[in-house]
Amino acid sequence: MEGRYDVAIIGTGPAGVSAAITAKVRNKSVLLIGSADISDKVAKAHSIRNYPGLPDIAGSELAAKLQEHLRQMEIEITDRKVTMVYAMGDYYSLQIDQEFIEATSVILAIGVSFGKPLPGEDENLGRGVSYCATCDGALYRGKEAVIVGYAPKEEADARFLSELADKVTYIPVYKKDEMPADPAQLFPGIGNIEVVIAKPAAIEKRDGKMVLTTDQGEIISDGIFLLRESVSPGKLVPGLELDGNHVKVDRGMAANLPGLFAAGDITGTPYQYIKAAGEGNVAALSAVSYIDSRK
Amino acid sequence: MEGRYDVAIIGTGPAGVSAAITAKVRNKSVLLIGSADISDKVAKAHSIRNYPGLPDIAGSELAAKLQEHLRQMEIEITDRKVTMVYAMGDYYSLQIDQEFIEATSVILAIGVSFGKPLPGEDENLGRGVSYCATCDGALYRGKEAVIVGYAPKEEADARFLSELADKVTYIPVYKKDEMPADPAQLFPGIGNIEVVIAKPAAIEKRDGKMVLTTDQGEIISDGIFLLRESVSPGKLVPGLELDGNHVKVDRGMAANLPGLFAAGDITGTPYQYIKAAGEGNVAALSAVSYIDSRK
Repeated sequence: MEGRYDVAIIGTGPAGVSAAITAKVRNKSVLLIGSADISDKVAKAHSIRNYPGLPDIAGSELAAKLQEHLRQMEIEITDRKVTMVYAMGDYYSLQIDQEFIEATSVILAIGVSFGKPLPGEDENLGRGVSYCATCDGALYRGKEAVIVGYAPKEEADARFLSELADKVTYIPVYKKDEMPADPAQLFPGIGNIEVVIAKPAAIEKRDGKMVLTTDQGEIISDGIFLLRESVSPGKLVPGLELDGNHVKVDRGMAANLPGLFAAGDITGTPYQYIKAAGEGNVAALSAVSYIDSRK
Repeated sequence: MEGRYDVAIIGTGPAGVSAAITAKVRNKSVLLIGSADISDKVAKAHSIRNYPGLPDIAGSELAAKLQEHLRQMEIEITDRKVTMVYAMGDYYSLQIDQEFIEATSVILAIGVSFGKPLPGEDENLGRGVSYCATCDGALYRGKEAVIVGYAPKEEADARFLSELADKVTYIPVYKKDEMPADPAQLFPGIGNIEVVIAKPAAIEKRDGKMVLTTDQGEIISDGIFLLRESVSPGKLVPGLELDGNHVKVDRGMAANLPGLFAAGDITGTPYQYIKAAGEGNVAALSAVSYIDSRK
């Protein structure tokens, strides 16, 4: 579709899928962005016992059913990554790679990243701690940087950073089955990346340097990149009001910015599939009302 | 079971069933009270398009799936009518006929009832009479429909239906102070909505058409949507705080009385099955926390 979508839905777990289905039922133009395979957290669940109507269903099976539902409704998943959402007044601009896509309303359904921030992480964010090598890499030209990569795809950022920085320490914190047999061989031919197997524990700034404390001792550098799966929702949408790590919403799933809604784990506990699906529905109908009120 | 239940759940629509399933998963003793056939409003829905994972399912089929889920979880429905719920301090007493049953916590999931139905309404529910334009609107593509709107917010559904139906007759049955000065101007720019001021009196099916009898004569169409406000749940539970005709709840579905929760249509719009199921889950987990905190 060209032009402006009625609603952009970010996230393809039960909340995002539910929102997309209901918005489509209400004849709105929908951009659904996220993993084409439906969120990992669903697909990898062993068994879900309390999604009413689908007793004792495996996560992979629920994911397949959600995909089938989307297919029947002719809703496609745009498998790309939104890096920023800007409130433009009467519409939103979503940054996707180098492109900007417009939507009248946005529903955030990106879930939560499990794992609390490291001690010292929040305080030093933007002052030695970064979540984005592409954005902040240039700051480390000729310096030393540490990357904590939570998935193999972050190795690309290590390579990128090694072209700028004098030295990169790469700490792979992968799931077991993603861990390479010989981590030292992760970056063949690149002399200035050192791979260290360690478990990050805390971050502090000391004498102008960043100190990452790990179970293998301290690693000192000029900057630390934490490359996790999910980004804090406040980082994604400037001006978004949070409640802890969650988006603050009312009972209609409206956030503090007009036309912006949220659904699912991102709005808070309980982290449950059926709760997420229900909230997606409510968010979609609130977005529909918002869109219609502007016509 | 003898003695005091951990949680009594009143209502067997998607909200009550969802609450019962989750409470059972969490090993609480559950009393589920309501129609053994699952709420009528589910069973009689034509077709539900936005219950994620169960695309385009008939209401009767969803009701059957909910029943099957309860059966698999070994949850029985107690098919009796609760007449009053009394807050006793650290427990609740439910009056059922002449008997009193105790529960530590209560989840109200009785939906919304709409006062006295019109003659002919119940018989034709699901066969030309609907309470939900979002659910059943698609059935009227290229056809003629009548909407009886009991509040100005229902005008949004008329606009939605006008995108599908050839013609929509909108009958505003508002409170006096909500009535617009010039009802004919309710839908500027929309050619296929006719506003008629009339008082609905009865419904019948005649030669495959739906006939709405009013004080201004008969209005014939393919389907009639009755979009009403609901009757107060405050009568059931003395001391319950309401928001209009709905139970006032927080994001954890807690009402103002400790240990009392609500889920589904009774907590407010949108009246949607998946929203109700999601809220039942949240209410159950809040009840579980409440119960555990008292041990």
